[in-house]
Amino acid sequence: MPTEPITSPIGVFDSGIGGLTVVSALQALLPAENIFYLGDTARVPYGGKSRTTVERYSIEIGNLLLAERAKIIVVACNTASALAVPRLKECFKVPVQGVVAPGASAAVASTKNKIVGVIGTRATIASAAYENEIHSLDADIRVISVACPLLVPLIEEGMFEDKITDLMLARYLAPLLASGIDTLVLGCTHYPLLSQTIARIAGPGVALVDSAANCAQAVKNVLEKNALSAPADQLGELNVALTDATERFLRTAANALHLELGDVALRSLQNPEKP
Amino acid sequence: MPTEPITSPIGVFDSGIGGLTVVSALQALLPAENIFYLGDTARVPYGGKSRTTVERYSIEIGNLLLAERAKIIVVACNTASALAVPRLKECFKVPVQGVVAPGASAAVASTKNKIVGVIGTRATIASAAYENEIHSLDADIRVISVACPLLVPLIEEGMFEDKITDLMLARYLAPLLASGIDTLVLGCTHYPLLSQTIARIAGPGVALVDSAANCAQAVKNVLEKNALSAPADQLGELNVALTDATERFLRTAANALHLELGDVALRSLQNPEKP
Repeated sequence: MPTEPITSPIGVFDSGIGGLTVVSALQALLPAENIFYLGDTARVPYGGKSRTTVERYSIEIGNLLLAERAKIIVVACNTASALAVPRLKECFKVPVQGVVAPGASAAVASTKNKIVGVIGTRATIASAAYENEIHSLDADIRVISVACPLLVPLIEEGMFEDKITDLMLARYLAPLLASGIDTLVLGCTHYPLLSQTIARIAGPGVALVDSAANCAQAVKNVLEKNALSAPADQLGELNVALTDATERFLRTAANALHLELGDVALRSLQNPEKP
Repeated sequence: MPTEPITSPIGVFDSGIGGLTVVSALQALLPAENIFYLGDTARVPYGGKSRTTVERYSIEIGNLLLAERAKIIVVACNTASALAVPRLKECFKVPVQGVVAPGASAAVASTKNKIVGVIGTRATIASAAYENEIHSLDADIRVISVACPLLVPLIEEGMFEDKITDLMLARYLAPLLASGIDTLVLGCTHYPLLSQTIARIAGPGVALVDSAANCAQAVKNVLEKNALSAPADQLGELNVALTDATERFLRTAANALHLELGDVALRSLQNPEKP
């Protein structure tokens, strides 16, 4: 018997709103599951911050998700997945699922010429988390990683089809395309919102691997393995909470992803020890 | 007699590193003053966050600066100046000097055709702080404000001379130039690092008003008025502390501003009540 009720929510967090791409993938795959999403908009972004700080923030949010009775913690943020998942697994008894391992495993399955590109925030790329994970599965794969620190700001401005975004992307992707990659990992949960433009610039010879869809599949597997799946006859609810009341990009992302958000709650992480 | 020793430091803070442009201006004008600078790099940027959150962060940092015996609190961040200076003045007994009032007053002195442009973060522009301050000095001045949310990321990438930055700036400045402004307020402490490019795109008919230099002059006036100036025969020291150990842009900015930083300390704001 599971100790947590199976109707407890899947707890999902991100530094901000990008993790809603994971929520969208979870809803498509697991429509019966309740989802509680926490976006740490008071401290967004994590992508340029240190491991110590990202670990501390992730643990604070993990405590908040457990107070919401989360049966699994989904780290829907590549930076937090790359830097903080090992600490989270030490701290919490519920399963912890990040986005890096599923993305790496999908990249290994996708590549034919064994040359894989990875794009992400500065912190994700500096951590070499994707590289290490891919090499643990197949040491022969050549991994070329490029930090793309301006993509998140461009996406948050909604500049999906824009000459400036095209120029910036072409510059970031140039060394990857020159290396002959046949697979590109979108190593940031914001990037699926820009996948059409990335696909156009990368060209038809490059398969895109999306963290969100692969993470959702991994969550499904973990829930099934632990007998934690919700009853199939219910329709799951989505609850969204943010740490700062800045909803501008939230609405942009929700529209792009066709998510029904309802009311958005505000949560403080000032006293994380008393959630 | 001042209650605070005159050799106590000027306490300066910013959400990150942009406020070092104010430090540079303070050192040029007040070489005898000790300066303690706190960059809240663990929660940078403030420019897209809400008033409540920016007020809370500013009060936490004010307490930290007072624990460092600051004789004045300089809010070297336009967003925090625009949103939190009134609350800081209520909370603290030492003088509080923001960057908005000096910038507005310099813009009023500069404009001849009474058409002034203001660029800043989304939060600064939404607050209408510059507009209100300028209108309190001269209600006949027309103020046109444009939020430039991508400039800080571009500056933090060091893309000072870059085609992409030029394109973005031209787009942001177009409505201001079309309105015939003769004065442009750089309403973000990052922007002086990009002033050459901004001047080139704005053209010779537009005078740039720099928060940093005008704020330094205001600090000098406040210190003199309160008999808090340091003895002229000493050479001031600069101490820099950050809330997250991410020094990449710190070094870029320090080099561009010719600042001697020495060691950089790390400070936690986790328990702000116990600084």
